Amino acid sequence: MKTLRVATHHREEMIDVTDAVSEAVAEAGAAEAICLVYSPHTTCGVTVNEGWDPAVQADALQMVRELVPRDRPFTHSEGNSDAHVKAMLVGAGAALPVAGGELRLGRWQAVFLCEFDGPRQRELWITVR
Amino acid sequence: MKTLRVATHHREEMIDVTDAVSEAVAEAGAAEAICLVYSPHTTCGVTVNEGWDPAVQADALQMVRELVPRDRPFTHSEGNSDAHVKAMLVGAGAALPVAGGELRLGRWQAVFLCEFDGPRQRELWITVR
Amino acid sequence: MKTLRVATHHREEMIDVTDAVSEAVAEAGAAEAICLVYSPHTTCGVTVNEGWDPAVQADALQMVRELVPRDRPFTHSEGNSDAHVKAMLVGAGAALPVAGGELRLGRWQAVFLCEFDGPRQRELWITVR
Repeated sequence: MKTLRVATHHREEMIDVTDAVSEAVAEAGAAEAICLVYSPHTTCGVTVNEGWDPAVQADALQMVRELVPRDRPFTHSEGNSDAHVKAMLVGAGAALPVAGGELRLGRWQAVFLCEFDGPRQRELWITVR
Repeated sequence: MKTLRVATHHREEMIDVTDAVSEAVAEAGAAEAICLVYSPHTTCGVTVNEGWDPAVQADALQMVRELVPRDRPFTHSEGNSDAHVKAMLVGAGAALPVAGGELRLGRWQAVFLCEFDGPRQRELWITVR
Repeated sequence: MKTLRVATHHREEMIDVTDAVSEAVAEAGAAEAICLVYSPHTTCGVTVNEGWDPAVQADALQMVRELVPRDRPFTHSEGNSDAHVKAMLVGAGAALPVAGGELRLGRWQAVFLCEFDGPRQRELWITVR
């Protein structure tokens, strides 16, 4: 298992970690495998989506913000309940295909850490099996 | 593949199954692996989120209930369409990292069966590879 | 890794690909494994849900359409931002259990390609490990 360290800079942010994940896959040396990119946190998640136009990421964050508003009444008292729910909807991990020893994404896809309660120091745990 | 049996007691409920999953992983005896926790049902799912404060689970269930109201008009006639959609949003399974022969979760994370159409007898299928 | 080709016929559609996935799993010849069904696209995803009553699929698509309306203001200029967000909520891939050499789904479950920006020619990438 390899640990990536990712610093986030805003409360909500999608950070493209594709290059680091590709590198971890290459190092793992498996020809055909499944790569799990996993967030050990409860207020950030992992997703795969378009990496070319940053507007897609802005739209995705905005949509999720409207679906789970931060200022609605919550029971949990830390003021970040919205972030827990957003992380649950996006998912804590993404399983990705490895073939020919390389991470295989679609042409327009990138892997993102989805921060919902930053800025923070985050980790992603990469397992290739 | 190991089968966990889980009894749910409410229509909507998040049940912490972390200990049982950890045990299944230890029994599997794999040093480094991916553990799939899978719900074979169509009205309950599996997620990873904060396990310490039950208010987070209450907030998550409440938010999902607001996003997918039970009493809106649906086509499916069994009265549980909302539960199908909720299960789809949460996901039928969670892939988790195994390292050093142990299930590796973040400090505040727990694995939950998310019941959306209980109470019922449920199963979770655990695969470690 | 095996590639399935799937033609979609509507803008939004859930297409049952269970038989093709089962076949790919049988061909792979693994006794116990995890099967990853992965969409390399950014406007379609993969989910597991009820396969018996098509009304469940219609309800799920309708609910997702209401959660992420196509005609709200978006930044991304291609007119398919809603589809990117829908794909993110549903997820790009599904990890499924394989036991006894066969894909193991629950009695009422089916695997679906979820099209949100069709009609198109799509691919699904199947990895069994």
